[in-house]
Amino acid sequence: MSIERLIYLPLGGAGEIGMNCYVYGYGRPEAERLIVVDLGVTFPDMDGSPGVDLILPDVTWLIERKDRIEAVFITHAHEDHLGALAHLYDQLGRPPVYARAFTANLGRQKMDEHSHDPKAIKTVSKWPQMTAAGPFNVGFVPISHSIPESSGLVIDTPAGRIIHTGDFKIDENPGVGEPFDRALWAEIAAGGVKALVCDSTNIFSPLPGRSESTIGGNIEALVAGAKGRVVATTFASNVARLKTLAEAGDRAGRSICLMGRAMRRMVDAAVETGVLTSFPTVIAPEDAAQLPRDNIMLIVTGSQGERRAASAQLAAGKYNGIELKDGDLFLFSSRTIPGNEKGVIKIMNQLSEKGVDVVDDAGGLYHVSGHANRPDLEEMHAIIRPQILIPMHGEHRHLREHARLGAARGLQSIVAVNGMIVALDGNAPKVAGYVETGRTYLDGRVLIGAMDGVVRDRIRMALNGHVMVNVILDENHEPLGEPWCEIRGLAETGRSKAPLVEVLEADLDQWLKRASDKVLKDDDKVEEALKRVTRQTALDEIGKKPEVTVVISRLT
Amino acid sequence: MSIERLIYLPLGGAGEIGMNCYVYGYGRPEAERLIVVDLGVTFPDMDGSPGVDLILPDVTWLIERKDRIEAVFITHAHEDHLGALAHLYDQLGRPPVYARAFTANLGRQKMDEHSHDPKAIKTVSKWPQMTAAGPFNVGFVPISHSIPESSGLVIDTPAGRIIHTGDFKIDENPGVGEPFDRALWAEIAAGGVKALVCDSTNIFSPLPGRSESTIGGNIEALVAGAKGRVVATTFASNVARLKTLAEAGDRAGRSICLMGRAMRRMVDAAVETGVLTSFPTVIAPEDAAQLPRDNIMLIVTGSQGERRAASAQLAAGKYNGIELKDGDLFLFSSRTIPGNEKGVIKIMNQLSEKGVDVVDDAGGLYHVSGHANRPDLEEMHAIIRPQILIPMHGEHRHLREHARLGAARGLQSIVAVNGMIVALDGNAPKVAGYVETGRTYLDGRVLIGAMDGVVRDRIRMALNGHVMVNVILDENHEPLGEPWCEIRGLAETGRSKAPLVEVLEADLDQWLKRASDKVLKDDDKVEEALKRVTRQTALDEIGKKPEVTVVISRLT
Repeated sequence: MSIERLIYLPLGGAGEIGMNCYVYGYGRPEAERLIVVDLGVTFPDMDGSPGVDLILPDVTWLIERKDRIEAVFITHAHEDHLGALAHLYDQLGRPPVYARAFTANLGRQKMDEHSHDPKAIKTVSKWPQMTAAGPFNVGFVPISHSIPESSGLVIDTPAGRIIHTGDFKIDENPGVGEPFDRALWAEIAAGGVKALVCDSTNIFSPLPGRSESTIGGNIEALVAGAKGRVVATTFASNVARLKTLAEAGDRAGRSICLMGRAMRRMVDAAVETGVLTSFPTVIAPEDAAQLPRDNIMLIVTGSQGERRAASAQLAAGKYNGIELKDGDLFLFSSRTIPGNEKGVIKIMNQLSEKGVDVVDDAGGLYHVSGHANRPDLEEMHAIIRPQILIPMHGEHRHLREHARLGAARGLQSIVAVNGMIVALDGNAPKVAGYVETGRTYLDGRVLIGAMDGVVRDRIRMALNGHVMVNVILDENHEPLGEPWCEIRGLAETGRSKAPLVEVLEADLDQWLKRASDKVLKDDDKVEEALKRVTRQTALDEIGKKPEVTVVISRLT
Repeated sequence: MSIERLIYLPLGGAGEIGMNCYVYGYGRPEAERLIVVDLGVTFPDMDGSPGVDLILPDVTWLIERKDRIEAVFITHAHEDHLGALAHLYDQLGRPPVYARAFTANLGRQKMDEHSHDPKAIKTVSKWPQMTAAGPFNVGFVPISHSIPESSGLVIDTPAGRIIHTGDFKIDENPGVGEPFDRALWAEIAAGGVKALVCDSTNIFSPLPGRSESTIGGNIEALVAGAKGRVVATTFASNVARLKTLAEAGDRAGRSICLMGRAMRRMVDAAVETGVLTSFPTVIAPEDAAQLPRDNIMLIVTGSQGERRAASAQLAAGKYNGIELKDGDLFLFSSRTIPGNEKGVIKIMNQLSEKGVDVVDDAGGLYHVSGHANRPDLEEMHAIIRPQILIPMHGEHRHLREHARLGAARGLQSIVAVNGMIVALDGNAPKVAGYVETGRTYLDGRVLIGAMDGVVRDRIRMALNGHVMVNVILDENHEPLGEPWCEIRGLAETGRSKAPLVEVLEADLDQWLKRASDKVLKDDDKVEEALKRVTRQTALDEIGKKPEVTVVISRLT
């Protein structure tokens, strides 16, 4: 096993949509030199991760091999590709990080917020510039997506060329940024491609994807016909969409106001890096509030119903001096990501209560996806003609369907999920091992493992409520006074109509009075018994088995 | 104000989809005789109601007037129309309940489970039979929906005829149950209709609705082409769909097996009441496990991703002796209700990991909605030609859009939301007052108000974690020993790398040692201070502000 090998190892993003992190290695087994493509986050929810701030991939495997990391390459600035970098930078041994100008600009702000040297992120030019990183040579090839300067990576290795698409769509007229360049990709692939590691998000969308340019007219017509205020929301990072929206407002004689920190940050970064060369003049919210309703268009954050974003605030009441009312128009120029439906619907109904007309993308008129649909993926396969196809950026069902599509076209395809080491140096991909992967939670300011039990305990308290039992035992192991209960998140009275705490205290007291000296000497036994009594009494009284914390204080 | 009036008062279902409860009254103001149409539930979720078992409408207003309730009428057996009856029956003073045979059959099972007399529900025949209830005369007119024997109600009052559609679609070929009968509805409306109170669910669906009969061929073709096991899931109550699915399996030479308690209950009720006259022979799960894979079709519960239902169990592993594998087919003959996406997607991915092919209704081939689309609603308006249109069964945006549609056609329309008393005796609907409404939670076995704070406390523990602080003070108000902390749902260590509980205990001890005698005498002041210290220390250490419970024990 001393011959060198080329490996692919996804640590996030393969088997889920979110927290992308892909590792490539080349060298002797267990001594490969490594590069990391993307370090993203995914977002918590009440169901599985209440109170958590961010979810990061568990990169323990990488941390243990940090001396072998040559570099990190960030394909684009979406949070699910860039968001974990600053959080994990130290633990990964502060490797060199490479990105194009727009991505680097946003990444540096995050590094700065975490007190890292912003210069750790080096700006690279697009293909044909290549960056050497150990045995790898990496080039950033412009590819169309829903954020500026997205790049597919050309990763040249001693075992051949890999194309890592990053997130992409085929758009020849993306508005802002670089069009998809078939000829360039064909030229890059002409010498033969070992493996295409390819976005799978929209594998189940059967029709060819639509260009960003197809919706401008629809948006313009909608805004032109509006009589009151116009508000539009979309992903802050979709700079092309922001421009489309702003220009529609501008043409309708409306002043443009951007609301939400993320949106202003994105536009600033796009202007600073030269990505955005023209954009209508933007006015401040306080000025917008002074203008007649039919002279203003707001472009705001919060298209996914995020509680603190501008959309939610405007729906709930007055925000930045602006209150929407009867006859105003609110456009969701976006798609609702699964799981966010309730938040978005809540906003729509709040707006409806104010008399605001809500327009969403139900008809496909005001939004296009940033990912390649099934026919587009087939086209990409045909352009690149790789030996091996590795679907990425998808749930298991997406990866599997994408692999089947590739196999049907004669490509060596594999469903490679997080933690699977795939050797790519042979003629077909080969599973070479598995590593532990998972999720790391940023909880407040602390990183905790998803399986540490901390969040599981919070979920249990949310489902079952919590009883705290206090007992004081004296020098002779005799109860001093009666046990004391506090409840949180439980009904105050149940079956017996007496306060639940009183019933609990009476039952616990009875147990204590009957318990033998031998038992009362033993904290573990007392705790176990008091928990059991508490759960049983609560079950009888209110039909719930609560979480119980027992505190035994001994006077010695 | 001594003249009699006719009022409409929604207590649930108007401003939300779920927990339907509509009240009609006739008589002198504040002395109206009342009837209740439907008493439904809605389902809890982790976001807003963790640990809650069911959500019921808050019917305090009705309970306070229970001596004025003449009867309850249940339009159909869906949980959001029938599910709260047994829970609220006693509090409402055990009024007479009327329903058609299938609905009554299912309702009686629920009444029995709650130890109520099942005979309290009286079976009524369909129109033209009428049931007198005080000043009202109520008839059940068959109307097509997605459960057998759904009915629109004709409610005759001294102030005119009301048509309360219940949930409906226009389906002339529903498979099981009665087709939509245009001529009958026209005849019923011929003498003039005061108000049409009308389902609004699908107001945003622009195309005419499709008949249940349009999908049979698609399902049959899919099942006929399957090589391994076939599993199909749909709403258990959609008896027509169960039949369509079972017949498709039967024709493909497969034995049919129903899995999930709700599904067997529905089919039994449909057979017992004569609703279902033919259904392929059904075999038991243990027999199904013995059959070759291509000889079996399972029809299972859990189309919404419910964790304990058959779909989730089959996706997670072996269930009833059956384990799905590579080459099996799983059909979602259903739509995912907003909010349930993550659960459904989880199942799809688990199935994908087993190699099972998942087919959903993305293309509209295998499911049709049970509600009238926009053009169907327009047709209903045209058939009934009411003086007044009151949209119901919808979120605010649905009610508003439906009212606009009616107004555009010259109908007196009103957006009447939960708690709004609308007087219907004049020529136009008039808001006559508002009553307090809301939600009641069934939590374990106890009914609690949604605003009581119990569930809010559970949500806070889930978001913030929980610290319990124990202090013992002696006769002189001096701390006896050091304070004691327990944490639940919080990281064990933070910034200082020392255990969080130890840092908390040290800071609390320091405060106690510095506190004056005057402060230590006062439980409230001690509690407030210890909470403040705990929150501040936790914020410094781990970046979170936990919930805190302080227990002060005084030795006296």
